[in-house]
Amino acid sequence: MGILPGFEKALKPKSIAIVGASAKDDISSYIAPAGLSFLKSLMDFGYEGKIYPVNPGAKEIMGIPSYNSLLSLPEIPDLVIISVPADKVKDVLHDAIGKGVKNVQIYTAGFKEAGYPELEEEIKDIALGKLNLLGPNCMGICYVPSSKISLWPGLVKEAGRVAFITQSGGHALQFIEYAQGMGIRFSKVISYGNATIIEAPDLLEVLEDDEETDVICLYIEGVRDGRKLFEVSRRLSRKKPLIVWKGGSTEYGKRAAFSHTGSLAGEDRVWDAFFKQTGVIRAYGIDELADILIALDLPRMRGRRVGIILNGGGYSVLAADICGREGLEVPALTDETQRRLREFIPPAGTSIKNPLDVETVFRKPELLEKTLALVEDDPNIDIIFFALHLDLLAERRKEQIDEFSEFLKDFAKRTEKPIAITLDTWGGNPYVVSRRASLSRELPSYKIGVFRSIGRGARAIARVIEYYERLTLP
Amino acid sequence: MGILPGFEKALKPKSIAIVGASAKDDISSYIAPAGLSFLKSLMDFGYEGKIYPVNPGAKEIMGIPSYNSLLSLPEIPDLVIISVPADKVKDVLHDAIGKGVKNVQIYTAGFKEAGYPELEEEIKDIALGKLNLLGPNCMGICYVPSSKISLWPGLVKEAGRVAFITQSGGHALQFIEYAQGMGIRFSKVISYGNATIIEAPDLLEVLEDDEETDVICLYIEGVRDGRKLFEVSRRLSRKKPLIVWKGGSTEYGKRAAFSHTGSLAGEDRVWDAFFKQTGVIRAYGIDELADILIALDLPRMRGRRVGIILNGGGYSVLAADICGREGLEVPALTDETQRRLREFIPPAGTSIKNPLDVETVFRKPELLEKTLALVEDDPNIDIIFFALHLDLLAERRKEQIDEFSEFLKDFAKRTEKPIAITLDTWGGNPYVVSRRASLSRELPSYKIGVFRSIGRGARAIARVIEYYERLTLP
Repeated sequence: MGILPGFEKALKPKSIAIVGASAKDDISSYIAPAGLSFLKSLMDFGYEGKIYPVNPGAKEIMGIPSYNSLLSLPEIPDLVIISVPADKVKDVLHDAIGKGVKNVQIYTAGFKEAGYPELEEEIKDIALGKLNLLGPNCMGICYVPSSKISLWPGLVKEAGRVAFITQSGGHALQFIEYAQGMGIRFSKVISYGNATIIEAPDLLEVLEDDEETDVICLYIEGVRDGRKLFEVSRRLSRKKPLIVWKGGSTEYGKRAAFSHTGSLAGEDRVWDAFFKQTGVIRAYGIDELADILIALDLPRMRGRRVGIILNGGGYSVLAADICGREGLEVPALTDETQRRLREFIPPAGTSIKNPLDVETVFRKPELLEKTLALVEDDPNIDIIFFALHLDLLAERRKEQIDEFSEFLKDFAKRTEKPIAITLDTWGGNPYVVSRRASLSRELPSYKIGVFRSIGRGARAIARVIEYYERLTLP
Repeated sequence: MGILPGFEKALKPKSIAIVGASAKDDISSYIAPAGLSFLKSLMDFGYEGKIYPVNPGAKEIMGIPSYNSLLSLPEIPDLVIISVPADKVKDVLHDAIGKGVKNVQIYTAGFKEAGYPELEEEIKDIALGKLNLLGPNCMGICYVPSSKISLWPGLVKEAGRVAFITQSGGHALQFIEYAQGMGIRFSKVISYGNATIIEAPDLLEVLEDDEETDVICLYIEGVRDGRKLFEVSRRLSRKKPLIVWKGGSTEYGKRAAFSHTGSLAGEDRVWDAFFKQTGVIRAYGIDELADILIALDLPRMRGRRVGIILNGGGYSVLAADICGREGLEVPALTDETQRRLREFIPPAGTSIKNPLDVETVFRKPELLEKTLALVEDDPNIDIIFFALHLDLLAERRKEQIDEFSEFLKDFAKRTEKPIAITLDTWGGNPYVVSRRASLSRELPSYKIGVFRSIGRGARAIARVIEYYERLTLP
């Protein structure tokens, strides 16, 4: 069916009605408090349009005049959020259509996923061809910083260029919070729940040409129009990277998906074919979505040969094994590079083949800088992976962390090779711990990819290299 | 060759000589400071035996009389730690033999692994049949709390029942620190580096009958006597669980292993066969070693059917998928259990099949207790997996966390089913964050397995179930 004209207004709404906004802050019931929480979150986030609480039992809510029904509003709201009990949803939909509303999202659960498919069918019959309906059982358009929309409290106000479409509202919040902490910023987050009318491919089409969005993440449990998903995904992922996390990839996950959004999760082999044939990047969780976004933000990889700089012999073996298992290569540096490294790195307790296990230079930033420059120049290396041990760097003078990180920022600006980094610490030194946190925030804006571990970085980088390789195919 | 008589004294030494103990705290050179650091760490840890620093250039070090050579010591030390430069090691070994020393560990690196195999052969020729030699390029017997030995500062003094044998000294420290934070305590940690004389199977034989040790972890890069490793491992793992992390499982890891300990990492298919035929549990890193130790500490699993209690529809799908992928089962609860759960859990926004997605009960401990008890009673369930959302529990009154955790401890005492738990939080509430940390420490002593994520718990539990299943084979 697709999306009806007017959906763009829902993404930049001049007015939002919240039906079921309650004045009662009663956390013990499931549905009632959501409307109030949406209202508060919008106000806290600085939403600049009109908000219309709709609740026959209230005159005003949080100081805002409340209305008896959608029909009594002074204008047609660009977006209606419905959070009344399930058996009242139909009435609200009729009111919305009567008022001329185009865009509706239903937070209320208790439909197909809870064993009431007939209730969901009724809703579908009412809305089809008349309303752009998100849900039920969803958070809908829940986080659009450029429109000053957030349906949760406390999220970052800064907008970014990553969109997230998700069948789970819980994953939406969890992913935003997790990714925020890693410096990732969002253009639009939309949860679509049971997908009674609008489903994933419809939303992907909306984002395909969205000028605020460079990269799209999708969490999906099932899809009715698989053909459309396939076609949109294949077309879209040649323009923008599309990362998909498929929920319900095992027998047990499929049953859980049905209980969650009433979705039929589909055959694994069909989904495997989907990933193979569309160029979509596959992820298996929130952490991996975030890692892949970080890897996509690096300068484009020209190959899969990694040069690894770290401290520790066992760590070298681990790092090389992990890269190897993920399909990256860890070739020996050229003889010339090794010769030049040996001029200032003693042989005992070190290795300079690759990984470079070079404890001594971690204590001396001037040597670490030389090491980094030599690895960058090596023609065998496409990507620099750097496990920076902050405690060693700070051992002689704590300011060495700051001096070296300034060097690193300049270095990242002038090199064309992607730099991935982990910020390692034993955790005891408060200065090191605080600088670790601040560097995690600072370095990404210099196109340095900060990963939680070498394994997670290697895995994400490998997925992104596969994506780029596929792009070059005809 | 095996281990010569007298090695038991090295594990409970009445005296330790440190050859190369320097008075100079110069962090810029690689070898010199180690001896001093060992000396300080032993003193800090409360080592009660005699310490003999050996250094021709010093009269005393840290207030302890220093000696010119091993030959001038007033007694034969039970253990000698050597940290002189590589070209001086031979002389110290001759002195050790001359003095009648039985046990020596060489910290010094710069032998086979650094491109000097002939230097290592000379050491081997001197020591073979005369000394129990650990190393070179190792930390040796580095952490034995029952003997008040630690060669690193700041480690926990409490002893436990886990032994760790490792070819990497770096992994030793990293694993001890990581595992400590998860409530795991050690009997003995021994690093053996280049394995010139003593290698992994010899140390496993020592631990096989060690009364202080219930579980053994091994990090290994390569082995000379593969036959012996196979036989000892197969025999041992029927008595005590043996978890092995094999370093150098890829082309690149193998090269790094050679640069690290001069080890030939061997063919993957040979190692695959080793794991298949010995009943050894395989791990791929420090985090997985720790997770498996936690799973081994739970009551023995009678099957692989998991009952999962959590909050969130998307989270349900994720949890079920992860368990399914790791080879666990997530069967539907019996109709009877579901009927009884429905008496107090409303249908909208919840699921009670399995996983149980039950936000409402997380806010009411009395309902959470009922839920837990019903899942425990269900004959379809062997293991309870519980993602406890602390913020929801604390939402009405923060003390609900404390009340419920007391219930949980009692519950764990009386049930025979293993309980795995994750302590989830949005991270904003300081009380919740501090209770999360304290509960992570408290719960393990009640045989509740605290895991960092459902995925990590599921993976470790699956490995342990496989181990138990194998034990029942003839």
